[in-house]
Order: sequence, then C-alpha cells, then structure tokens
Amino acid sequence: MSKPSLPAGTRDFGPDVVRKRNHILDTIRSAFQRYGYQPLETPAFENMETLMGKYGEEGDKLIFKILNNGLDNPEKEAKVRAGFETVLQGKSSTDITERALKYDLTIPFARYVAMNHGQLTFPFKRYQIQPVWRADRPQKGRYREFYQCDADVVGSRSLLYEAELACLYHEVFTNLGLTGYTLLVNHRSLLLALADRCGNQDWLVPITVAIDKLDKIGLEKVKTELTQKQIPSAAIEQIEKYLSVEGTADSVLEQLNALLGEIPEGAAGIGALREWMGYLADQPVSFRIDPTLARGLNYYTGMIFEVKAPATVSMGSIGGGGRYDDLTGLFGVSDVPGVGISFGVDRIYDVMEALELFPSDIAQPPRILFFNLGITEGKVTFGLLQELRKKGIAADMYPESAKFDKQFKYAEKRGITYVAILGESELKTQTIQLKNLSTGTQSTLSHTDFLNIELS
Amino acid sequence: MSKPSLPAGTRDFGPDVVRKRNHILDTIRSAFQRYGYQPLETPAFENMETLMGKYGEEGDKLIFKILNNGLDNPEKEAKVRAGFETVLQGKSSTDITERALKYDLTIPFARYVAMNHGQLTFPFKRYQIQPVWRADRPQKGRYREFYQCDADVVGSRSLLYEAELACLYHEVFTNLGLTGYTLLVNHRSLLLALADRCGNQDWLVPITVAIDKLDKIGLEKVKTELTQKQIPSAAIEQIEKYLSVEGTADSVLEQLNALLGEIPEGAAGIGALREWMGYLADQPVSFRIDPTLARGLNYYTGMIFEVKAPATVSMGSIGGGGRYDDLTGLFGVSDVPGVGISFGVDRIYDVMEALELFPSDIAQPPRILFFNLGITEGKVTFGLLQELRKKGIAADMYPESAKFDKQFKYAEKRGITYVAILGESELKTQTIQLKNLSTGTQSTLSHTDFLNIELS
Repeated sequence: MSKPSLPAGTRDFGPDVVRKRNHILDTIRSAFQRYGYQPLETPAFENMETLMGKYGEEGDKLIFKILNNGLDNPEKEAKVRAGFETVLQGKSSTDITERALKYDLTIPFARYVAMNHGQLTFPFKRYQIQPVWRADRPQKGRYREFYQCDADVVGSRSLLYEAELACLYHEVFTNLGLTGYTLLVNHRSLLLALADRCGNQDWLVPITVAIDKLDKIGLEKVKTELTQKQIPSAAIEQIEKYLSVEGTADSVLEQLNALLGEIPEGAAGIGALREWMGYLADQPVSFRIDPTLARGLNYYTGMIFEVKAPATVSMGSIGGGGRYDDLTGLFGVSDVPGVGISFGVDRIYDVMEALELFPSDIAQPPRILFFNLGITEGKVTFGLLQELRKKGIAADMYPESAKFDKQFKYAEKRGITYVAILGESELKTQTIQLKNLSTGTQSTLSHTDFLNIELS
Repeated sequence: MSKPSLPAGTRDFGPDVVRKRNHILDTIRSAFQRYGYQPLETPAFENMETLMGKYGEEGDKLIFKILNNGLDNPEKEAKVRAGFETVLQGKSSTDITERALKYDLTIPFARYVAMNHGQLTFPFKRYQIQPVWRADRPQKGRYREFYQCDADVVGSRSLLYEAELACLYHEVFTNLGLTGYTLLVNHRSLLLALADRCGNQDWLVPITVAIDKLDKIGLEKVKTELTQKQIPSAAIEQIEKYLSVEGTADSVLEQLNALLGEIPEGAAGIGALREWMGYLADQPVSFRIDPTLARGLNYYTGMIFEVKAPATVSMGSIGGGGRYDDLTGLFGVSDVPGVGISFGVDRIYDVMEALELFPSDIAQPPRILFFNLGITEGKVTFGLLQELRKKGIAADMYPESAKFDKQFKYAEKRGITYVAILGESELKTQTIQLKNLSTGTQSTLSHTDFLNIELS
C-alpha cells in the first residue's frame, strides 16, 4: 500500500492551527456582527454557467470542474464523447462537467442576490467566511484551498459604508493586536481624471497598469513602459506630477485638486474622498491616500482599499476591497451597486505568527486530567469528571489504570496543568488530591470543596 | 441570459438559517471541548486513492470526482484518451481525475492519523465539523452537500469513552432542549453470540440483516426472511427468544445472560454493557438496550449507538456511532482502535424546527438603527454609532437622508427594536432621541446618557 498523502496545495489543520485560525475568524465575525453584517453560506460547488466567463480566460482554466457522474451510461455515450473532444481542446462541456468548485465568494454572492432580490431588504449587508478553490500552481503562501472572508453591502451608494468599512478594518486589526498595518485608499475617478488630463480617457488602463508598478520597478521604468505604450511625453509629464503627490491626506487632496480639480471626474473623486474623511474625522482610523492604487481596475468603480501588512514582515497585502457599480448585472438583475472588503486570512495568520501575536492561552487544553486508578475508583472519579464538565470546565480522564508516571506524562503532553487523583485511600476518606503541575503544589480536598474550587 | 440557479441537492444558507445552524453547531462544539476533544479540519478534496474502495462499489459511484486541469496538453493526449475510455466503462482513471470531494469525515481522519501518528498523543480525541459531498439522488432531507459532525477517540480500548460519549449525547441534546430523544445501545458480541447459539457464527450477517428490519416489517416477515436464507427452524426459535427480550436494562441483561451467557462472546458483550452501565449509574443519561441494533455491522466491533428523534416528529435517526477495531489499517498503520459518535445536523435542525426549539432571540438583528438626517447630522450620528459598536453593541445606520417613514420601515424589516434620531434640533442641544419600536416609548438623552443606556 502506498503511503497516504495530501493533494498538493491543500492542508490539514490540526488542533493548534484550528484554534489560532478560529481566533482570527471569531474576531472578524464578531466585528461583522456588531456592524450589522449578516451571515451567508453558499454551496462549495456551483453550476458551470454560474462561474465560467466571470474571471477571464486565465480564471476559467483555474476553476476546479467536477466530473459528471454516470458517464458510463450507454445512452449518453455519443454526447459524452463529443463533450470530451471539447475538453481536449481546452474548453468545457456540460456533458462532462455540470458543476465546479467556487473560485471566490463574490460571484456566488451575486448569484444569491440575483436569485433572492425580491425577498431581501436593501441595503443588504452580508458577510461570508468560506473556503474557495483554485487550480493555481502551489507555492509558499499560495494554496489550492483557502478561506475568503468578505463583508459587502449592496443596494446603496452611500459613502457611509466606505467609512464604516475603514472603521471595521481598524477594529479587527486592533483587536488582533496587528496595529502596524497600513490602510491605503484611492478613488477610481482620480485615475480616470488623470487619463483625461493626459488627453484620452481610453488611456486609463495602460496608465494605471504602468503606475501600479511604481513601488516595484521605480519611476524611470514606469516612464519607459508608458513610452512603449505610445503615451505622449507631455502626458508622461502630467503622470510624473501625479506620482509626485504626497503628504498628509489634506495636502494630497489639495495637490490633486490643483492637478485634476477642473476635470469633472477629478472633482468627483476628490469630493468623495473629502466626504469620506469627514465621517472619519473623530475616528481612530489611520490611512494614506495612494493615488497609484488600482487593484483589479475593471471591477472597482469608486473608492479602492488595500491593507498592507506591517513592513517588518514583508507579507504584502492582507486585505482589500472597494466599490462596484453592478454586482448582479451578469445574472440579469440590474442596479445593485455595492461596496465590500475582504480579509486575507492565511496571510493574517502568517503575519500574526511572525509577530508572535497569538494569545499564549489559545491552546485551551482541558484544565484537569483525572487519574485512573482502577474500576472502583474510576466510577467515583468519572462522576466528579462529569460534574466539572457540567459546570463548563473542560476536563478529561485517563482511560485505564496505569502507572502514575504514564498518567503524568499524558497530562504533560496534552498541556494539562492540573491533575486530580482519587485512589484507594481517597476513596475511603471521600477526598481527592489536586496537584498543580506547573507550581508543584498539592492539596487534599473534600468532593464538595473540589467541585467549588477556582482554578488559576 | 438564463436565470441563475443552484445545483440540485445543494442549498444557500441565508442569515436566519446560518444562525440557527450555528446555534446547533456551537452547542455541540462547546460540549466537545469540555469533554477534551480537539478540533481537526481536513481539505474538501483528497487524492483519489485515499477515497476509492473505502465505501463499497456503490459508494465509489457516489463520490464526486474532480476533473484534472490541463487535459488539453497535447503531450498527455494518448494517456488522457485511454483514461477517458476507462471512465466510459464506469471505472476511474487518475489521468482524468486525481482528486475527489470527501465523502465522509472518517476516512480523511484515518488518513490524518496514519500520516501523523508519530506526532500525536494517544489516546487522541478529535472532533470535526465539516461538509461532505455525495452524488446521491436528491430528495426530501437528503442533500448532495451536508455537514457531518463527529467526535472520536483513537488509541484506547477503554469503555470509559463509550460512557462519556453517552453523556455527551445527553448533554448536547439537553442543552438544545431536545429532551425526547432515545439513545439505543447494543454490543456486536451479542449478535455474534446469537449466531453461535443458532449453530454457526457465519450466520451473523443474514441474521442481523433480517432482525434489523423487525421494527419495519414485523416478526412474521423476519421469520420468513430467515427461512428463505436457509436458517434452520430450531435456530429461528432461538432468534425469536432473543427478539422477545425486553424490559429495564438490568432485566434485559439477565434475560440475555440466560440465553447467551454460556457463549464466550455473549458473556463478553454482557460484561462490557455492565461495566459501561456502572460508569453511568449516577449519571442522568437514559438509554435502552436494543439487541437488534446493528448499524453498518461490518464496521463496528464493540458497542453500537443510535439516537432516535422524538417519536412525535418521525424523523428517524439523528445520531449514531460505535467502537471499531482498526481505523488506520487501510493506510498501513495497524493497532489503532477507536470509538466515535456523530450528530446528524440536518435532521437535528429539522426536528428543532418541527418542535419549535430554537430560541426566539436567535435572529440577532442590530439592537439600534440610527436615522440619517443629512450629512452634518450624519457625521455626529456616525460618531455615536461607532461608540456603541466599540462597546460591543451591534448597531447600524440608515445610509442616506430619507423620509422618517422609509427609515422606520427599514428598522422594522430588519427586526431592529430601537431607533436613535439625531436631527437639526438635537444637533443644537447635543442630545439624541431614543425610541423603542415595540413599546412606543421615546426619550431625549444627552450623548453620555445615551452611550451608557442599558437596552432591555
């Protein structure tokens, strides 16, 4: 028999890892709830037509498709063979796969809203924390199964939601102890105004693609790329001015106003950021306006968010989001604008590990291990064990009579601090011994006193 | 564009359903933790060789297989075509599918234990709450995606675990308010002793399959089936005696002892049940010994559990489990015995709905909706909203200035009890109005008083 193994790009989460992940997810979930977001869960797989064509040609290839069952049905053979030829040509066929694993949470959410929009109360605020699957080549920090963790509000254009989502980021990262993060914001209208200032709004994409790389390749190479893309040198001068904008948020907006304030899109973007900042004036949220931030430009239509991990861990983005105009148009329901953010749970986990931010008491082993000293003693011990559990104290009992040494070792291995010992003499005197393994202190207690003890 | 739809046999869980499901899962999870079980999560998909051949021929067909990506690679064409011919014959080929969705939690758990047995501390107690997938024909109460919820302890033969698992069932169902359930127990050795008493231990399977149907088809038809299976009439008389055993647990064991006590397996089964009952003597657990209970006979080797829903809802089994000798032998690691139970979450949900057992306050809408009366007022309102959220109170704000009517209606639709109103005059006097929509009472408060108020 070959040794069992895990599929590439997937992970088992053992007890310690689950507890740490739950610490992150519970922190996020409770913040979502305080902010009025409601839970939604969608199936692991969707119909092919729900997913295909939504993530570009590359995305389509990275979707995990599920083989139809019953392909050996002779009546279907001709269709199945034809479908298979289609698959061999790199396309998909519902005669071979009718279903596929979800690739993100956004498209299933859009499908849900489109299917239920008559019943939902808008603005509809939902959060969703579920795994998604992508057939990407696995590498450090990139998995084929990973969790996404999204909050969106659909059915309103109010900037109040952009404001509360910034507060939500602040609250979650503060509660996780991850205080060194940076929230970057931008507005798509500023990028559009820049293209306009350069002479042609159609240049939005090449300009944005180029300046998005500023951090990585530096100004000179950005200018080279722009030149290669036939952007005139006068326009490149404007872009250089745009890229040199920096300072406090107020100062950045003033500089942008000088540069783009006469263009309607520029004025709109600056106005939106000012309104948004107005809501946050008394809030502890810190942020930086980054005029180069784009993030999937074709998707976002208003404000854009990105959260960077503390520079010390060089982990990149740990969250992002923005406003979009039309969530459900692809599913035949128009006029559902929205705004949302997501948390990159796997990276947040890695950052918290690197910065040692997980609470030390997260392991939560049982508080007490009851020793097992035989069937007669064991029955009394089991009764006390159950009393403790009913009181909400996690406790466990060694399964069979064994040498003290072995039972102590089991307590240690499981990280249990207290052991409770009830042997022949304690049985007679109706007492029990309680020993704290970390301090070495030991006391003999009546059953009543034992059940009322406060464990440190 | 065609209307979006869900794959057959799958469900979206909207906010109300997620909260009710979480009420069940949280109740189970917290009991698991008090009993010292540790969380484990395994990937949604496994390698084909991990799953295939583990669930019988029928099971293999119900496993959802994932199509390999890159089937259009010309270099692989010959292999892929050959693999496809295999699939057309109703078999599987790793040239077409290397991975498949998990079918239950037990095999992935066994794979995990086999891969990690060097690092685990035995007895290893784990719980696992995750979805599984089966390509069954969907029907009422049967889904293609559903949750399993298992607790197992491996690496020990102690009956203490059978005792604590019975307590665990009691605690969970009591905490859910589902008190009318029945816990049935049996021991495989009793069935083996019966076959022996009938003259041949090889008759275990036909005898068990027949008597397992007693409830459904009645004694006469059971006897007919046994006759058809060539069981001699003298043996059928013994079986009839076995089936007539009833009464309190002690009396049942006495009757079984008279019938099977001389057979080693009979004595062993009765002895095990007596030891198990000894642990439970002072516990509030109620149970019934059902000598006909078998549940997947080929799997369980010791005690067998089944939980029946209250008879009033005719929902059948809502849980089950038992002891097995060899969890990981299939993966090359021998001598890992264990015992486990599972909770049928979907059926428990249906039973709780039918009996109206969900707490009335489970919907958890935000406590307060802040009205929006314009940008200037809105900024102050937003500040108060954020203060409440920081205090842990779920609250929300209407997104834009709108007529009172509309904002009241939104509060009602979302089930929010309190609304807070801060308009032009409250802005001047630095106050806010708080209105309880269910009582109609209203009061004007300073911001400080407002932030310190205790909501009923």
